[in-house]
Amino acid sequence: MAKTSALSPLAPARFPDLPVIDGVTFSTIAAGVRYQGRTDVMLAHLIPGTTIAGTFTRSATRSAPVLDCEAKIGGPSDDAAAILVNSGNSNAFTGKGGVQAVDAITAAVSKACGVPQNRVFTSSTGVIGEPLPYERITESLTGLTTALDAGGIEAAAHAIMTTDTFPKGAAASVDIDGKTVSIAGIAKGSGMIAPDMATMLVYLFTDARIDQTELQSIVSAGTDRTFNCITVDSDTSTSDTLLMAATGASGVDVTGSAGFATAVHDVMRDLAHQVVRDGEGATKFVEIQVTGAASDKDAHTHAMSIANSPLVKTAIAGEDANWGRIVMAVGKSGAAADRDTLSIRFGDIVVAENGWRSPNYNEDDAAAHMKAQNLVIGVDIGIGSGQATVWTCDLTHGYIDINADYRS
Amino acid sequence: MAKTSALSPLAPARFPDLPVIDGVTFSTIAAGVRYQGRTDVMLAHLIPGTTIAGTFTRSATRSAPVLDCEAKIGGPSDDAAAILVNSGNSNAFTGKGGVQAVDAITAAVSKACGVPQNRVFTSSTGVIGEPLPYERITESLTGLTTALDAGGIEAAAHAIMTTDTFPKGAAASVDIDGKTVSIAGIAKGSGMIAPDMATMLVYLFTDARIDQTELQSIVSAGTDRTFNCITVDSDTSTSDTLLMAATGASGVDVTGSAGFATAVHDVMRDLAHQVVRDGEGATKFVEIQVTGAASDKDAHTHAMSIANSPLVKTAIAGEDANWGRIVMAVGKSGAAADRDTLSIRFGDIVVAENGWRSPNYNEDDAAAHMKAQNLVIGVDIGIGSGQATVWTCDLTHGYIDINADYRS
Repeated sequence: MAKTSALSPLAPARFPDLPVIDGVTFSTIAAGVRYQGRTDVMLAHLIPGTTIAGTFTRSATRSAPVLDCEAKIGGPSDDAAAILVNSGNSNAFTGKGGVQAVDAITAAVSKACGVPQNRVFTSSTGVIGEPLPYERITESLTGLTTALDAGGIEAAAHAIMTTDTFPKGAAASVDIDGKTVSIAGIAKGSGMIAPDMATMLVYLFTDARIDQTELQSIVSAGTDRTFNCITVDSDTSTSDTLLMAATGASGVDVTGSAGFATAVHDVMRDLAHQVVRDGEGATKFVEIQVTGAASDKDAHTHAMSIANSPLVKTAIAGEDANWGRIVMAVGKSGAAADRDTLSIRFGDIVVAENGWRSPNYNEDDAAAHMKAQNLVIGVDIGIGSGQATVWTCDLTHGYIDINADYRS
Repeated sequence: MAKTSALSPLAPARFPDLPVIDGVTFSTIAAGVRYQGRTDVMLAHLIPGTTIAGTFTRSATRSAPVLDCEAKIGGPSDDAAAILVNSGNSNAFTGKGGVQAVDAITAAVSKACGVPQNRVFTSSTGVIGEPLPYERITESLTGLTTALDAGGIEAAAHAIMTTDTFPKGAAASVDIDGKTVSIAGIAKGSGMIAPDMATMLVYLFTDARIDQTELQSIVSAGTDRTFNCITVDSDTSTSDTLLMAATGASGVDVTGSAGFATAVHDVMRDLAHQVVRDGEGATKFVEIQVTGAASDKDAHTHAMSIANSPLVKTAIAGEDANWGRIVMAVGKSGAAADRDTLSIRFGDIVVAENGWRSPNYNEDDAAAHMKAQNLVIGVDIGIGSGQATVWTCDLTHGYIDINADYRS
C-alpha cells in the first residue's frame, strides 16, 4: 500500500467551491478495493443527451479500461450515461482477466443505473499487474446508486486519489446570450504518473449543450495546451484518462463559443497545475517559457527537454541559478537552436544572452530569485517566432524517498 | 568548485596496467585552470603519419573546442599531431571568446610541439559559461613538452578527471600475421554528463597502421554500440568528445581486420561501463537487454526509455522488483509494442509474460535478485527480432546530493 506523504508545500489553501452542474449526480463508497478506511469508488450519473469527449494516454501498453473508454467515445448520446472510477488498482497489464473485469463492471453499472453498457465509462488507478477484485465494486453498486447526489463532486475528488496529497478541483463559468453555463472538474495525479498507483485521471462536467464532435475538439485542443504541457518525471502512465461530459441541462447551446472553449481550457490548466503542485517530492512550481524557436513544436520540444532534465530539476531544488544546464537541455533536445543567439532569464533577470553570460548578470540577484516557491525560466532561442509554455516541478530527495521504496 | 564525492561503490579495484603505445608520448601539469593541488592539463604527442578519427556530441550547443576538433577530423595525416585537454573549465557557451581561446591554445601547442595547427586537437571539460583562462595553459607548454613520456597515460587519465571518483583506463591487444598491435584508452565522465563540469571525454591510442577513413568507421560503429548505449541521467553534454589516434608504429597494417575492430570496441565498451560505474550517486550497474522488437532501432528506443526512466531507476535503487514500471517505460517509448506479448525478467527470473505476471513468479526470489550490485533486466517485446543492450545505473539520494548543490 502507498506510503502516505505529507501535504505538498505547493498545495492550494483549500478545495475550491465547485458549482452544481445540472444533469450530473455523484456518489462514492468505501469498497475496499485495496485501501481500508477511505472511499475508493466514485460513480457519476449523467442525464440522457449528455455528450462525452475524452483524451487518453498514448502509451503502447494502455490498460483495459482505457481501451474500453476509447472505443466508446463518439457513440450515440441519446441515452443516460455513467462514469465509474476506482482507486487502489489500475487493472493495467492484467491480461485477459483485465478485459473481463471491465466487462463485468460496465455490465453491472449498466444494469444498476439503467444505462446502456456502451454508455458506461470506467477508469481504474492504482497498482499495476494485480487482478482487479471487481466484485468488490459490483457489490457496492446498490449503495452507490442510492446515494447519488448533485453536490457530491468534492467527495468524488477524494475517492479517486492515490498518492495525491490533496484533492484537486477547479471551476469556471461563462455567460452566453445572458445565460450562465458552468464547468467543474476534478483530477487526480501526483506526478505525470506514479505507475504503481498508475495514472492521471481528469473528469470535467458542464451543463452546456454542445455536440460530441465539437466537445471533442475543444477537449483535444485543451489537452495539448495543458495536460500535455506538464511533466513531473517524464514518465507516462498506462492509464491516463480525461473525460468531459456536457449534460445540456442549462439549455444553452455553446456551439462556436470561443468563451466556452477558453473557460474549459482555464479549468484544464488549473487542474494541470495542481497535478504538478502535487508532484512527488515537489518544493518548487516552475513555468518554462520558450520563445523565438523555429516553430511552436520546436519550442515545445525545447521546453519539455528543460522541464524533464534531471540536472535542471536538481539545480532548481538546490536554488541554484545554474543556466549552464539550461543551455545543455536546449542543446540536447533535438530541435533547432543556435548557441550564439540563445538568451536565458530567471524571472526578469537576464542571465545569458547572445551565446554568453549577460554582462549585467549578478549571481546574487539570481540566487535570491531562485529562493521563491514559484519560478519562471524564460528561454529565447533567437531564430524564429515559435513559442510554448510548460510547467514542471523540482527533483528532490522527496521524489527518491517516495519512489525508491514505494511498494515495500 | 566541485564537491568531492566518495569513491563509487562500483569502481574497479585498481587502474589497469596499460601497454605503452609506440608513437605516442604523454605529459601532464598542474596549470591551475580552476583546481588547485592537482594536475589539470594533459598533452599527448603523436608521430607523423598518425591517423586520427573522432566522434562528438550531437548537441546543438556544442562547445568551441568540439567544433574545432570536428572541422579538423579527416584532414591530411602526414605530419605529427598533438592532443591537449584541460579539466576545470569546459569553454562551452563562452561566445566569441571561446573560439579565440581555442585558437590561442592550438597556435601555442603548434609552436611548442612543432606540429601544424590543423593537427592540434583540444578538449576542455569543467564549468560552463566561464571564460577559459587559456594563458594558464599556454604558459604551461614548455613544462609539458619537456616532460613527454611514453609511459604517461595513467597520469593523463588523472589529469582529465572532474567529478569522476576514479580514473578510467582500458586496453586490448590483437595478433595479426604473427605480430601484436596494442590499443589503450582513457576516459573521463561521471554520468553521461555533469554539465557544470561538462563532458565525457575518451582518448584511444593504437600502434596499428590504418587509414583515417577506415579508423573513422570503426570508431563510429563502436560509439553507436558502446558510448551511445549508456545513460546515467538522460542528459547530453555540450562537449562530449572521443578521439582515436593510430600511430602505425607497430608497422602492422590492420586494414580489413575484424579482430582489430573487435578489440577497439572491447576497449570502448570497457570504458563506457566504467563511466556508468562512476555515475553520480550510482550504487547499482544495470544491463538492459531488449529482444523481440520490430527492429534493432526500436529495441534501442525501448531500452533507453527503460534506462532513462526515473521511476525504473529509483525502483532499482530501492531494490524493488517493480516490473510495472518496466511495462510503463516500454509503453511510453514511442517504439512498437504489444502489451499482450511482453515478457520481463530480472536476471533469470521471469516476472511477467504474455501481458501479465508470470504464474511462476515469486516476489521473494525477485527481491533477493535485486540486492545484487550488478543487475540484468531482460525485456522481450514479442513482435519481431530487433535487439539492443544498454547500460545504466540507479537514481539515488547521492545523485540529488551531488547535483542539487553542485556549484555552491
